[in-house]
Amino acid sequence: MAEPKKELPVVIVLGRPSVLNFYGDQFSSKFRLLKPWESSLPLDQFISTHAQSVQAMFCTGTTCVTPSLLRQLPSLRVIVTTSAGLNHMDLDECRRLGISVANAGTVFSEDVADFAVGLLIDVLRKVSAANRFVKNGLWPLHGDYPLASKVGGRKVGIVGLGSIGLEVAKRLEAFGCIISYQSRKKKPVVYPFYPDVHELATKCDVLVICCALTDQTHHLINKEVLLALGKEGIIINIARGAIINEMELVQCLVQGEIAGAGLDVFENEPNVPEELLSLDNVVLSQHVAFLTEDSFRDLYELMSGNLEAFFLKKPLLSPVFDD
Amino acid sequence: MAEPKKELPVVIVLGRPSVLNFYGDQFSSKFRLLKPWESSLPLDQFISTHAQSVQAMFCTGTTCVTPSLLRQLPSLRVIVTTSAGLNHMDLDECRRLGISVANAGTVFSEDVADFAVGLLIDVLRKVSAANRFVKNGLWPLHGDYPLASKVGGRKVGIVGLGSIGLEVAKRLEAFGCIISYQSRKKKPVVYPFYPDVHELATKCDVLVICCALTDQTHHLINKEVLLALGKEGIIINIARGAIINEMELVQCLVQGEIAGAGLDVFENEPNVPEELLSLDNVVLSQHVAFLTEDSFRDLYELMSGNLEAFFLKKPLLSPVFDD
Repeated sequence: MAEPKKELPVVIVLGRPSVLNFYGDQFSSKFRLLKPWESSLPLDQFISTHAQSVQAMFCTGTTCVTPSLLRQLPSLRVIVTTSAGLNHMDLDECRRLGISVANAGTVFSEDVADFAVGLLIDVLRKVSAANRFVKNGLWPLHGDYPLASKVGGRKVGIVGLGSIGLEVAKRLEAFGCIISYQSRKKKPVVYPFYPDVHELATKCDVLVICCALTDQTHHLINKEVLLALGKEGIIINIARGAIINEMELVQCLVQGEIAGAGLDVFENEPNVPEELLSLDNVVLSQHVAFLTEDSFRDLYELMSGNLEAFFLKKPLLSPVFDD
Repeated sequence: MAEPKKELPVVIVLGRPSVLNFYGDQFSSKFRLLKPWESSLPLDQFISTHAQSVQAMFCTGTTCVTPSLLRQLPSLRVIVTTSAGLNHMDLDECRRLGISVANAGTVFSEDVADFAVGLLIDVLRKVSAANRFVKNGLWPLHGDYPLASKVGGRKVGIVGLGSIGLEVAKRLEAFGCIISYQSRKKKPVVYPFYPDVHELATKCDVLVICCALTDQTHHLINKEVLLALGKEGIIINIARGAIINEMELVQCLVQGEIAGAGLDVFENEPNVPEELLSLDNVVLSQHVAFLTEDSFRDLYELMSGNLEAFFLKKPLLSPVFDD
C-alpha cells in the first residue's frame, strides 16, 4: 500500500451504518474508522478516549446527534449521515458550532418511490395476502376470495412533493392514478395543490407520505385526517413513522375507519404495534424502502466522496449545509 | 316486473362464473340462467334434459368447450366466455358449427398489467418477504437482511405484446426499466423486437409472460430459455401456466438457476408445486391478476351486453368471431 494505515484520515462511526457490511473494506482503505461497537469501552468512554481530535463523523438516521454528543467532540467539523432525513440531528446546534452536514441526498429517491408504489399495489391488489393464501395451501380448499381494488383511477394524494414524491407521482401516473399533493408551498407541477393535508385527504382515496419528519410534520396524519380519507382510504408511509399518529392509525385500521395501509416505517422501530400483525389489509416492512444493491453502491460512493471532499477541503457532494 | 320470468331468453351457464357471485341478480333479471350446479342431476344429464333448445352459453376460462360438449347442444349459436384467453375452447369446431364466440376482450388488461408490475416489484424488492418477516415478529430479533434489487435499469422482456403487454411496458417505463419484446410479428412500437424468445431471454434480466396459450406457446418457456435468462433472472407469469414448463421452472428455482419468480397462474390450478411454497424469492397468487371490483363491473356489462346483442340479433360487443 502506498500510504501506511495510520496516516489515513480518522472518522468516528456512530450508529453502525449497514453500508459498512457491504463496502467496509473500501471505506477502510480510505479512512481510519473508529467503531465503538468493536470496542469493549462504553460509548461515552470510547468517545472521550479516542475522539478528542476527531474532525469527521459518519452516522446513520438512528444516531441522535444532540448538543451533548457534539460537546464530546470539540474538534468535529463535518457529519456525514447515511439517511436522507435529518430529524435525528440538532441542525441548529451543528450550524452554531460551524459543523458542516452532508446527507444521502436523493440517492434513495427512486428506490423509495418504487417501494411506495409496490406497497400501494400490494394493498389494493392484495398481493401479499394472495401469496400467504397460496403458500398456506388454501387455494384448493377455498374458491372464493374478496375482490381487489383497481389501481387506475384512484385519487392519490402525495404528502410532501420532494424528490421521492415526484418519483411516486411519475410512476402512478403511468397506472392511470389521479395525482394531487400537499406541500409547504406550491411547486411548478401540473398536479392540483392543497396547502392543507385534511383537505387533500377529503379529496383522495390514497395518501402516500413522502415528507420529511420535522416539528411541523410530527403527527401531521392524525385521526381527523384519517377519517377525512374515509372507509375506502389507504395510507402508504415510506417517510418516517412519527409523521403519523400511530396509535390513532392503529385504531382506525382495527375499527375499519380506513381500508388498509402499507407501512415501511414506525414510531418506535423495530417495534411494530401488535394489532397490525394479524391484519390482512395491512402490509408491513422493516424500513427497507431504500435498501437495494444499487442504492448501496451509490450510497457508498456518495458517503466516501463527501468524507474525501472534506479532508481535501473541497465542497461536499451532498451538503445540507457546508461551512 | 314488466315481463314474466319465463319469457326471458335462456342461457346455459357452465363453469360457474364468479361474476355471478357479484352480479347474479342483474343477470337473472335479464336472462333465465340454467345452472347445473343448482341441479341434483349429473352435468351430462342436466344438459340433455334442459338444453336441447338452448341457443346461448355463458362460460368461464376453465370450461372445456369440446366437440362432444357442442354435440350435446345442437341449437347453440353463441358462446360468451368470461376469459380473455380462449385455450379452453375448440374454436375451429365452433367456427365450423356456425357458433359465434365473444370473450372478455381487454376488460382485464389494465388490472392484469398492474398485478404483473406488482409481482415484479414484490420479487425484486422482497415486499411479501418483508411483510412475512415483520408479521412473524422477527424485526426486533434480526437486524440484517439481504439487499433487494432496484426496479429501474432492469432489462425487461415482454413475451407477447398484446393489450396486456403494452400496459405492462407503459408502467415499467415509468420506473426506468428498459423494455424489449418477443411476439409473433413486429409491432409498431419503439421497443426492440426479438422474434426468438431464447434470444430475448439472453438480452434480459426479467421476462414477463403476457401471451395467449396456444399450441405454439405451450411450454415456450423451458429450461433452455430459463438458463439463458440466467442466475439473476426473474420470471413473471400472469398469462397461462402451461406457457411455462412448470417442472423445469421449479427445478431452476430450487437449484438457483434463476433468481426468482412471481406466478399468478399454474399448469394444474388450483394445485401449485409443493417446492414453491417455501421459497422466499417466489411470490404466488391464485389466478387473481384480473380480479378487481372495477373489472368485474366492466365484465358484467360486457358479458350481459354480448348476450343481449345476440338475442336482439345485433353485432356482438367483443366478438372473437361473429357469424
